[in-house]
Amino acid sequence: MSECIKNVNANGTNLSIPPMKVAIIGGGLVGSLAALNFARNGHNVHLYEYREDIRTAELVQGRSINLALSQRGRKALSSVGLEEEVLATAIPMRGRMLHDIKGRTSVVLYDPCTNECLYSVGRKHLNEILLNAGEKFPNIHYHFEHKLKKANFNEGSMSFQRPYEEKDAVATADLIVGADGAFSAVRQQMSKTLGFNYSQEYIEHGYLELCIPAKNDEFQMPPNYLHIWPRNEFMMIALPNQDKSFTVTLSMPFKVFQGIQSHQELLDFFRKYYTDALPLIGEEMLIKDFFKSKPQFLLSIKCNPFHYGDKALLLGDAAHAMVPYYGQGMNAGMEDCSIFFSILHQPHITLARALEQFTETRVQDAHAICDLAMYNYVEMRDLTKRFSFKCRKFLDTTLFRFFPSVWVPLYNSVSFTSMPYSKCIANREWQDEILKKVFGATLFFALTLSGAFIYVNNM
Amino acid sequence: MSECIKNVNANGTNLSIPPMKVAIIGGGLVGSLAALNFARNGHNVHLYEYREDIRTAELVQGRSINLALSQRGRKALSSVGLEEEVLATAIPMRGRMLHDIKGRTSVVLYDPCTNECLYSVGRKHLNEILLNAGEKFPNIHYHFEHKLKKANFNEGSMSFQRPYEEKDAVATADLIVGADGAFSAVRQQMSKTLGFNYSQEYIEHGYLELCIPAKNDEFQMPPNYLHIWPRNEFMMIALPNQDKSFTVTLSMPFKVFQGIQSHQELLDFFRKYYTDALPLIGEEMLIKDFFKSKPQFLLSIKCNPFHYGDKALLLGDAAHAMVPYYGQGMNAGMEDCSIFFSILHQPHITLARALEQFTETRVQDAHAICDLAMYNYVEMRDLTKRFSFKCRKFLDTTLFRFFPSVWVPLYNSVSFTSMPYSKCIANREWQDEILKKVFGATLFFALTLSGAFIYVNNM
Repeated sequence: MSECIKNVNANGTNLSIPPMKVAIIGGGLVGSLAALNFARNGHNVHLYEYREDIRTAELVQGRSINLALSQRGRKALSSVGLEEEVLATAIPMRGRMLHDIKGRTSVVLYDPCTNECLYSVGRKHLNEILLNAGEKFPNIHYHFEHKLKKANFNEGSMSFQRPYEEKDAVATADLIVGADGAFSAVRQQMSKTLGFNYSQEYIEHGYLELCIPAKNDEFQMPPNYLHIWPRNEFMMIALPNQDKSFTVTLSMPFKVFQGIQSHQELLDFFRKYYTDALPLIGEEMLIKDFFKSKPQFLLSIKCNPFHYGDKALLLGDAAHAMVPYYGQGMNAGMEDCSIFFSILHQPHITLARALEQFTETRVQDAHAICDLAMYNYVEMRDLTKRFSFKCRKFLDTTLFRFFPSVWVPLYNSVSFTSMPYSKCIANREWQDEILKKVFGATLFFALTLSGAFIYVNNM
Repeated sequence: MSECIKNVNANGTNLSIPPMKVAIIGGGLVGSLAALNFARNGHNVHLYEYREDIRTAELVQGRSINLALSQRGRKALSSVGLEEEVLATAIPMRGRMLHDIKGRTSVVLYDPCTNECLYSVGRKHLNEILLNAGEKFPNIHYHFEHKLKKANFNEGSMSFQRPYEEKDAVATADLIVGADGAFSAVRQQMSKTLGFNYSQEYIEHGYLELCIPAKNDEFQMPPNYLHIWPRNEFMMIALPNQDKSFTVTLSMPFKVFQGIQSHQELLDFFRKYYTDALPLIGEEMLIKDFFKSKPQFLLSIKCNPFHYGDKALLLGDAAHAMVPYYGQGMNAGMEDCSIFFSILHQPHITLARALEQFTETRVQDAHAICDLAMYNYVEMRDLTKRFSFKCRKFLDTTLFRFFPSVWVPLYNSVSFTSMPYSKCIANREWQDEILKKVFGATLFFALTLSGAFIYVNNM
C-alpha cells in the first residue's frame, strides 16, 4: 500500500489511497459509521460483529440504552448524510434540570445565548439507522455472530469464533479496524507489540439503570432536560426516551450498593435521597430493577499509538474508553471518524502516513476528553454546591454573550463545537487565569478604596 | 481452602494454610525463589518455565546478564539459606565511579559510614543456585519448555504449549502464581477481570549491551564500583563479572541509536562521548556488538490488585516491572516473596485474606519503586551536574553519620534497608522540607548579619 494511486470516488472526492479490503471489528455506533465512510471512499468493507444483528434480535444486550448526541456526533452523522434522520426522532435537551434533596427543581440551560442543546437518542435506534444505511452499499458486507479470536496484523489475517460452529472462520484484509469497544480484542492484540503505551483505570463507582415509565402516555417529568440529582458522593441522572419514559442511571460507590441488601433499605435510601423520583419510578419497579442485576463497572482507557504500521487502526472506545460523566463517549468515537477520513482525503497521502497522522493528531485530544470525563465525575456529583457553580455559569454565559468568538465556556466548547478537546482545556485554563487576575485586581481595588475611605475618615 | 487447619512444617513454623498444589508460572529468579518458599511451607509446587532448563542450555536468551543485588534481595535469599552461597561469588561494589567526558574518574561511595555495598551477580549463576536448591525438595517439580497458553483461575486449570508437541499439556492447581515477568501471561489473563487497574508505559530510551573484556586475566577498570558515564541525554554503565570482564549497558533515546548507521559514525560517537571506554571495549568488538542486535525497549508496568480471589497471585516483574535505573527490579521481586510469606505465616490467616493483605501492603510500595526508578532515569543521566549532587550527598552522609537512625538518605534507605519503598519517599520529602527551612533560616540569618554589618559600618 506504499504506492500512491489517485482515484476519484462516487462523491467526486480525490482519494490518494487505492481501493483496499478493510475489516472492521465491531458493528456498534462507531464501527457501522466507519464502514459507511470507508465504503463511500470506494473501499471493500467487511464488518464483523460478535452479537447477532440487533435489527432482528429479540433482546439486545449491551451498554446503556440512551445517549446524549452533541455537535461532534452530529457533524460525523451529517458527513454521511444521516444527521436529519437521526434528529427527527431525537429529543432535544436544552439544559440540566437539577433536583435537590427536598425534590425542588431548578434549571441551568446549556446555552442561553444560542439555544444549543443535546439530543437524547436511543442506542439501538441509532445503530439501526447506521446499519440500514450501510446495507445500501454493495461494497459493505456484514458478518454477524463473528467474534474475533486472533489477528495477525502483519499478515492481515484474522480468525473468528461463531456460535454452533466448531471450526473458526478465517479472513484477510489490507487494514484491520478495531471499533470493538472498551474491551477491544484488536487493542488487546496491539498491546502486545513493543512500544504500545496503555492504561486501564476502574473507578470506585458502579452504575445501574432504572426506569421512569410514561404515565397516561405522557412524560412524568419535563422531557426537554437532562435531569440530575447530584448528591455529592453519589448521583442519579435521567434522559428522555421516544416512548415517553426516562432511562434513569444511578451512579454510586460499590460499597453503597453493597450496603443496600433489603427492599426496606432500598426504599429508605430512595425516600431519603431521591424523594421526588421514587413515586415516578414506582416502588415495585424500583425493587425489581434494582435487585435484577449487579451494578456495572466503569473504566477509563488510554493508549498510544492508535495504529500499527499500515495494518491496523483503533477507533472509538477501543482507543479511548471514558467514564460517562461528560456525555462524550459516543461523540468522541464518531469524531474519530470525521478526523481520520479528513486525513485520508489529503492529497498524495499514503495509508501508513494517514494512520500515523491520526495518532499524532488524536491521541492528546482523546486523553484530554478521558481526563475531562474523569474530572466531571467529581464535578457533576458536586453540583449541589450550586451557588459557585451558578456564579461561574452566569459569568461564563455573560462573557460568552459579549465575546462569542473569544470566551467559549468549557462545557460549550466540548459539547457544541469541534474545537480539539485539548484546546478546550487550554482555553479553560486561560479563562481561569484571567478571572483570577480580574478578581485579584477587583479585590485590590476594593481594599485600596476602603483604605482610602478609612484614611479620609480618620483625617 | 477456606477452612483453617493448623500445621507445622519442617522448620517448625506454624502454618495456617493447609498444604495445597501451587503452580508457579516462570522459573526465573522470583519464580524459583517463590518455589523454594512454598515448598518449605509444605506445599506441593509445580514450576512451569517456557524456556529450556538454563542449567543445561547452551545459549540462554533473555534479559541483562548481571544485576546489582542489595539488602532486600539478600534478605530474601537469606530466608531460604542461600545468601552466603550467592555472596561467595558476587563482586562487591562500594560506590559509583563516575567517568566524565574527558575520561577523568571520581568516586562517590554508597555509604562511607557503614561501608554498605551493592553486589554484582550474574543472572544465570543466581538462577542456577535457586533451581539447584529447589531440586533438593521432593515437593518441587520442574516443567521446562512449558509456555502458558490459557488459565482459568476459578477452575484452577491451565494449558501449556510445548515445542514439537501438537497437543497442549494441561494441569490444575489450587493457586496459580504468575512470576512470568514483564510480559506475564498470568497478568494478561488477570487484566481481563473487572476492576483490574493496569498501565504499561514505554520510555523513549532503549538499551544495548556491550562488553569490556578481561585483559591478561585482569579487570581493565577497578572492579569494586558501578561505573557510570552520565551524559545528560544518554548514559552508559558497567558492572563487573566473575570472569573479570564488565557488562556495559548503553542507554539512549531510540532516535540517537537510529542516527548511528555506519561503523565510522559509531566510532566517532564513542570517541566524543566515551573516550576512555572505547579502547577498553575495543573498536572491533564495539562494532560487532553494536550492530549485532537492535536496542531493547524499556517499560514500566503498574497494576492493582496483585491477586485474584484465593486463586491467583502476581510476583516480581509480572506485578511491577520497572525501568532499571534504581537497580531494584530483582530486589523488589525477591522482597515480594519475603513479604508474602511473612503474611502467610500469620496465625489463623486464610489464603484469601493473605492474598488480599499482600495487595493491600505491597501495591503502594511497588508503585513507589516504579516511580523512583523512573525518576532516577533522569537523575542518573544528570549526575554530570555533579556539584549539587555531591553537595547533597555530603550533607546526607554527614547527617546520616550523626543521626543514623533518623536521617537515612533516600538511596541508602532504598538499597540498604527494608524500609517500605513508599516510606523511603516520604522520608526524603521531610528531609527536603527540613533542608529548605534550614537553608531559608541560614539565608535570613546571613542577610540580617550583613544588614547589621552595613548599618554598623554606616554609623
